[in-house]
Amino acid sequence: MTARTDVEAVELANTAFYETLERGDFDGLSELWLSATDAGDTSISCVHPGWPVLSGRGEVLRSYALIMANTEYIQFFLTDVKVVVLTDTALVTCTENILSGGPAQESGELGPLVGQLVVATNVFRRTPEGWKLWSHHGSPVLAETGDDEGSED
Amino acid sequence: MTARTDVEAVELANTAFYETLERGDFDGLSELWLSATDAGDTSISCVHPGWPVLSGRGEVLRSYALIMANTEYIQFFLTDVKVVVLTDTALVTCTENILSGGPAQESGELGPLVGQLVVATNVFRRTPEGWKLWSHHGSPVLAETGDDEGSED
Repeated sequence: MTARTDVEAVELANTAFYETLERGDFDGLSELWLSATDAGDTSISCVHPGWPVLSGRGEVLRSYALIMANTEYIQFFLTDVKVVVLTDTALVTCTENILSGGPAQESGELGPLVGQLVVATNVFRRTPEGWKLWSHHGSPVLAETGDDEGSED
Repeated sequence: MTARTDVEAVELANTAFYETLERGDFDGLSELWLSATDAGDTSISCVHPGWPVLSGRGEVLRSYALIMANTEYIQFFLTDVKVVVLTDTALVTCTENILSGGPAQESGELGPLVGQLVVATNVFRRTPEGWKLWSHHGSPVLAETGDDEGSED
């Protein structure tokens, strides 16, 4: 096993987060978030696209249980992944190109697939058990801006 | 002058951030963000509601210059401000109740005022010059969720 840099370790933790969502692996997801021991019970926070802020492990994990229960299929294609590590905190920004489907009316079928463009800021903390999620904030990309400022006046 | 706790100092830094936006104070705003000396030139990131991720002081500060140029009036009423400090990093979540207006057609008049509900996750770093913004992520609140899960099935 080779020694990993902090940036590589954070990238793996970030990928693992989305993989637990793809698998609908609630226990795996729970382990990736900072525990009450690491940071106090109300420390973590989460914003799903279009949602208000959720705070604390109870609220955050309940929201994921609800989302998993209502999602038959979800896949994340991550692009523009940027990682910055400052001592024991890591900040990850990425674009989540999401393909998802809800439960279908007929059993055995997938519901209609929906594509969604979301950007996320994920904050991780270094712990004895590796890098853990402190905050996730995802939001819909509604407008193309930033690259094309010249066209505004 | 009394000694401030970390949480109080972060709250003041968070309030100062929104006050520079209200005043259209670009230089004041620039000073509140982490400098290249503190964290490297590409370290900071910013997501405005509905926008893609902006990275680095150049992109982030340019976006604020653009927003200030197109905003005649803006006021933030902050609610639900939560601050968590873990060593040298602070995570702030808050609801930005925004009232804003663009330039009017006739000079001397305000444009129509628009109300907007945005939630933000702001990450600050402790520096020798006080707490500085490392990341801002704002997103529109599009749905009422979280408090009313019982109505879903």
